[in-house]
Amino acid sequence: MKHFVSMKNLSEHELLQLIKLADDINQNGIEPLQKQVFAANLFFEPSTRTKMSFIVAQRKLGIEVLDFMTDASSVQKGESMYDTAKTLESLGASLLVVRHPEDNTVQQLAEQINIPVINAGDGKGEHPTQCLLDLLTIYQEYRKFTGLKVAIVGDIKHSRVARSNAYALATLGAEVYLSSKPDWQDDSLPFPYLDIDEAVESCDVVMLLRIQHERHEDQSTMTKEEYLENYGLTIERENRMKSHAIIMHPAPVNRGVEIDDVLVECKRSRIFKQMSNGVAARMAVMTKLLEKGGIKHENSFNQREAVSSR
Amino acid sequence: MKHFVSMKNLSEHELLQLIKLADDINQNGIEPLQKQVFAANLFFEPSTRTKMSFIVAQRKLGIEVLDFMTDASSVQKGESMYDTAKTLESLGASLLVVRHPEDNTVQQLAEQINIPVINAGDGKGEHPTQCLLDLLTIYQEYRKFTGLKVAIVGDIKHSRVARSNAYALATLGAEVYLSSKPDWQDDSLPFPYLDIDEAVESCDVVMLLRIQHERHEDQSTMTKEEYLENYGLTIERENRMKSHAIIMHPAPVNRGVEIDDVLVECKRSRIFKQMSNGVAARMAVMTKLLEKGGIKHENSFNQREAVSSR
Amino acid sequence: MKHFVSMKNLSEHELLQLIKLADDINQNGIEPLQKQVFAANLFFEPSTRTKMSFIVAQRKLGIEVLDFMTDASSVQKGESMYDTAKTLESLGASLLVVRHPEDNTVQQLAEQINIPVINAGDGKGEHPTQCLLDLLTIYQEYRKFTGLKVAIVGDIKHSRVARSNAYALATLGAEVYLSSKPDWQDDSLPFPYLDIDEAVESCDVVMLLRIQHERHEDQSTMTKEEYLENYGLTIERENRMKSHAIIMHPAPVNRGVEIDDVLVECKRSRIFKQMSNGVAARMAVMTKLLEKGGIKHENSFNQREAVSSR
Repeated sequence: MKHFVSMKNLSEHELLQLIKLADDINQNGIEPLQKQVFAANLFFEPSTRTKMSFIVAQRKLGIEVLDFMTDASSVQKGESMYDTAKTLESLGASLLVVRHPEDNTVQQLAEQINIPVINAGDGKGEHPTQCLLDLLTIYQEYRKFTGLKVAIVGDIKHSRVARSNAYALATLGAEVYLSSKPDWQDDSLPFPYLDIDEAVESCDVVMLLRIQHERHEDQSTMTKEEYLENYGLTIERENRMKSHAIIMHPAPVNRGVEIDDVLVECKRSRIFKQMSNGVAARMAVMTKLLEKGGIKHENSFNQREAVSSR
Repeated sequence: MKHFVSMKNLSEHELLQLIKLADDINQNGIEPLQKQVFAANLFFEPSTRTKMSFIVAQRKLGIEVLDFMTDASSVQKGESMYDTAKTLESLGASLLVVRHPEDNTVQQLAEQINIPVINAGDGKGEHPTQCLLDLLTIYQEYRKFTGLKVAIVGDIKHSRVARSNAYALATLGAEVYLSSKPDWQDDSLPFPYLDIDEAVESCDVVMLLRIQHERHEDQSTMTKEEYLENYGLTIERENRMKSHAIIMHPAPVNRGVEIDDVLVECKRSRIFKQMSNGVAARMAVMTKLLEKGGIKHENSFNQREAVSSR
Repeated sequence: MKHFVSMKNLSEHELLQLIKLADDINQNGIEPLQKQVFAANLFFEPSTRTKMSFIVAQRKLGIEVLDFMTDASSVQKGESMYDTAKTLESLGASLLVVRHPEDNTVQQLAEQINIPVINAGDGKGEHPTQCLLDLLTIYQEYRKFTGLKVAIVGDIKHSRVARSNAYALATLGAEVYLSSKPDWQDDSLPFPYLDIDEAVESCDVVMLLRIQHERHEDQSTMTKEEYLENYGLTIERENRMKSHAIIMHPAPVNRGVEIDDVLVECKRSRIFKQMSNGVAARMAVMTKLLEKGGIKHENSFNQREAVSSR
């Protein structure tokens, strides 16, 4: 694993290693790097959650953050993403975190660049660190994936989260089901579709997707209320979920559309826990990639011990 | 004091404690936190002074800064401020600093959020950290508030600074006077109005306010020169101030409007000193709030001593 | 050297001192400052390379960075640059790094401000830290300047880099030649013009400039291909360069305009090395300026030694 741009090519073993490392970091923390290391975050699309999550993860690892602002930068002068990335490498960045509105651009960049690249979301392509935090959240709940029934519900066609999660969950042995408004189905994904009522009643995890209005070409004539009633998680449907089943959503939530407002923070909801888990998941990915490049978390225990024990 | 959103409800004792803590930090500094703590700054309105001041204060306390950029974020996707705040809490923020163009939004947010919220200015509402730095500046000068005559001069109606300062100064025993162009008076404030000439001649502190053009609905037909002449601090008026009286202004100053250009850095002016004081004032507020939440400035003296004395 | 705003007034001795300090930092690093120091970066014009380079340099020196964002700040409220700079000084900044679209504004600011000011590029004026990194790159190659032939090629008229480099190289004893499309010549510079073919054949350094479209008033009717063919560095011309001669460009490169795309990363090209050198060059400048102001890199070797040797 030189880069972290897609979940598709990772083996079950690699996935489990990352999940367990993230779980361990979440519980026990990790020593910050002793050496000064720079990471550059290149977000060519707006983002709160993911970008802030990376920054927290970076600072917890002791990494210096270069926040490349696309609207206040040479991109205005027409510089290519390759040249921008190469520049940041030349300036001393050991790691690039890239979000881009177009599918597959991050993967292409990774092939051209020497330092590790992390895909922080590319168009309708993939969002592998979101996937890893989702996997961590499920793992914390069930401590296994084999045999778990997971429903991915909503705007499948325009969702990079759906893609990354469906493949990774299948690799880990879960049974993946999709549920979607007919015109938002994506027939290239080799997983069976259920209607929303079947999905909520039979699955251990109900993973809702955000409606990606910004990626839709035509505007739906359906009201929010109609969407919720027909395809979303209503209170009535939540009542029919299995007793132990959990609700997930990558956020930001369209409250009252994908899910009833009052369910966002209900007992089954892991939505804000997912956000917390994002920090550990990203710390795990960056730790792995930097280790591969020879930048390790040296244990400074002896030195500290010596100071504090006197 | 769980949050710091308004000066109105603070007792004289609480105010004096904060002023004295800020004064102490200003003179003697304070140990940075030994534990990694994150604060998130959410500015939904432009700001240089206040935001930079918070960042300096945070870094001096050793706090990691999450700079939430409103225009480059999920707010574009229509996320509510509550969800944004909750996200930052989930990511690990121990403190939120919020500026918002609408009155009372920050107070409402504070009621919904578990971590401490600091109001960095809400519409025409309050600006309590600006108030605290103003109080610190007056305290440095006179070491007391009882019996001091303070004139708050200018655009009272649209000023959050006026509101916070008037209430806090009254609580501390100062005599508060207001002075304003008739249509900028705010009759909900229970303090007497003076004309500008009375104000400058009788008061120990002449606190000018910035004209908040951006909050005015109609445009005044008065020229800058006419405003200065009729309602501002001219050189001629400055000559009639009491010998020890000081000039204050929260800045940014409209030079030649609220105050004659040459007076901005005159001997009586505490304008740039106020800015410096802002750092200590904000350090004091954050220290208090974090302590309340169990995050303390552990004295690491022994450890350092041990290292450096050998 | 109180400020660093122009290369014009620096002596050969001062230039060599800075180059050698940068070279030393580049090879051996430097101890970060033991004291907390703040620098403020004020970029009134977009920039990736220069701003990120300063941030890396600042963090490597252990300096805290205040990133003043012009579009999200009080500049919108009409505050003058002087007041902004004075504010940052009041907040505790020990150093200002300023980029501005208008010539000479940074120099004017420096005359009014007590803390050191670094010119990070002013209009068509100067770009002294870019110049220093260029000098460092040439020095790494040849270990001398006397007798070296350097061609500065391209949009001379609109380039601040041309100006800074021409003066500094002449001071250091190099033979400076200019080469440009006739209407982009600047006759105020006292250096001879060569045509591009003479320039590439006779010089030890071919320093290309970026075409500054954003500073042009009229639009050229020439195509990119025509420009490259007539005035740029084609593969054919590169073949006629002296065997040891190097190619430089301040970047961002207009690939296929100033230089053939494939030459950007060719063996002779020092373009990405220049970017790396920018970090050391800026570290050298900031170290010098802070030292002058009494902020030194204390050697903390003894203390560290004591801790780790036990």
